Amino acid sequence: MTRFFVNPSDLAADTVILEGDNARHAKVLRLREGEEVCLSDGNGEECVCRVESVGERYTLSVLTRRPSESEPAAKVSIYMAMPKADKLEHVIQKATELGAYEIVTFPSARCISRPDDKSLRNKLERWQKIAVSAAEQSGRGRIPRVVYVNSYKEALMRGTAADKAILFYENEHATTLQMALTDATLGTVSLLTGPEGGLEEKEVAEAREAGFAVCTLGRRILRCETAPLCALSVVMYATGEF
Amino acid sequence: MTRFFVNPSDLAADTVILEGDNARHAKVLRLREGEEVCLSDGNGEECVCRVESVGERYTLSVLTRRPSESEPAAKVSIYMAMPKADKLEHVIQKATELGAYEIVTFPSARCISRPDDKSLRNKLERWQKIAVSAAEQSGRGRIPRVVYVNSYKEALMRGTAADKAILFYENEHATTLQMALTDATLGTVSLLTGPEGGLEEKEVAEAREAGFAVCTLGRRILRCETAPLCALSVVMYATGEF
Repeated sequence: MTRFFVNPSDLAADTVILEGDNARHAKVLRLREGEEVCLSDGNGEECVCRVESVGERYTLSVLTRRPSESEPAAKVSIYMAMPKADKLEHVIQKATELGAYEIVTFPSARCISRPDDKSLRNKLERWQKIAVSAAEQSGRGRIPRVVYVNSYKEALMRGTAADKAILFYENEHATTLQMALTDATLGTVSLLTGPEGGLEEKEVAEAREAGFAVCTLGRRILRCETAPLCALSVVMYATGEF
Repeated sequence: MTRFFVNPSDLAADTVILEGDNARHAKVLRLREGEEVCLSDGNGEECVCRVESVGERYTLSVLTRRPSESEPAAKVSIYMAMPKADKLEHVIQKATELGAYEIVTFPSARCISRPDDKSLRNKLERWQKIAVSAAEQSGRGRIPRVVYVNSYKEALMRGTAADKAILFYENEHATTLQMALTDATLGTVSLLTGPEGGLEEKEVAEAREAGFAVCTLGRRILRCETAPLCALSVVMYATGEF
């Protein structure tokens, strides 16, 4: 069923109007009177609606309300040191499909990309749109937030607030992800990975001190955009999603 | 350590010459006399070598020979119904990093991309180069072969020769990947996924009859290029890689 995200307040009434981007999207999809679609508040609540009238704006009537059934049990946050632009966009799209709760990016010592404030505002807007679009297509009940934090230290503090915080490091060989996930409470999980050039040893030590488990993702070197998606897939599996 | 793939026969002698693409690559990397590099035969055997002389061709002396330590225990074959070109290239690159044994592509009912013979030959050459390059960068000891098979039926027959053959289908909700992997011998595994428009119900039934387990990858709809990489990540995890 086609899915649109609307403001939570729009779902309060029995009639909902689709306008702006949503109306344009509905037009592209050739939505017709009588068709059923799913409207989601992007926060876990959704309504099945019938299209009552089409045109510049679409009028829909609410048939049933329900909590979203497609959100994973574990809230997994991706912490990715800021890579070059297209890689982060790739990760936002894929991590949204795979069920990430949020995508957090931050500077680390070897980051090449260091956007200024204005460019960052534009980027964040663009990144959030990618998350919305991927959430619609994959049938998410929640739009993952894309968040920028100002420093590596702040990212560590934020990340360790989770039940389990894990950092992946190519020079770690002894501790496997399997060890880190065994016996851990996994209601909320933070998965941290480095930029193109990797994390510095000092940064890894800092993370360990802050409470991160430092793990390997195997004996092959994964690109910076592959590692978080590999780890996220596994955590979803390990928490019983599929 | 920088890695080059050479012909297996080149590794028989105590002196190895790098020429052609490898020499150009060595030049880009500014390889110097005295530096150590790893030469792999792309088939699981490798040599640590010292650079003896640089120039148009590079002369290397073999220091030690050893079996590659970076190959996964399980041989996992990706069977991906042919998607549009850039998506397959993406999957070849990432699946190589993640440790795939081979990448097999084939036509299915809803495939949009249907290259003719000549275009297919060119594509296969290009795809294989992507695998080589990803294998070098990720430190693989083996270059995954990229294979095209002519029909869906042939893909099924080839796929079920593995210890465990699994097909992922968005309309399957009961059987999880966890169930399919439990108690299974996982020396060789085939993971089959559909094209952009998904597999037809009839095709899924055929696969089931041929011996494929039909599984879900969770309650979110994954893009055709996301599904095989998610499944591959999980099988690597489940077979003890990390």
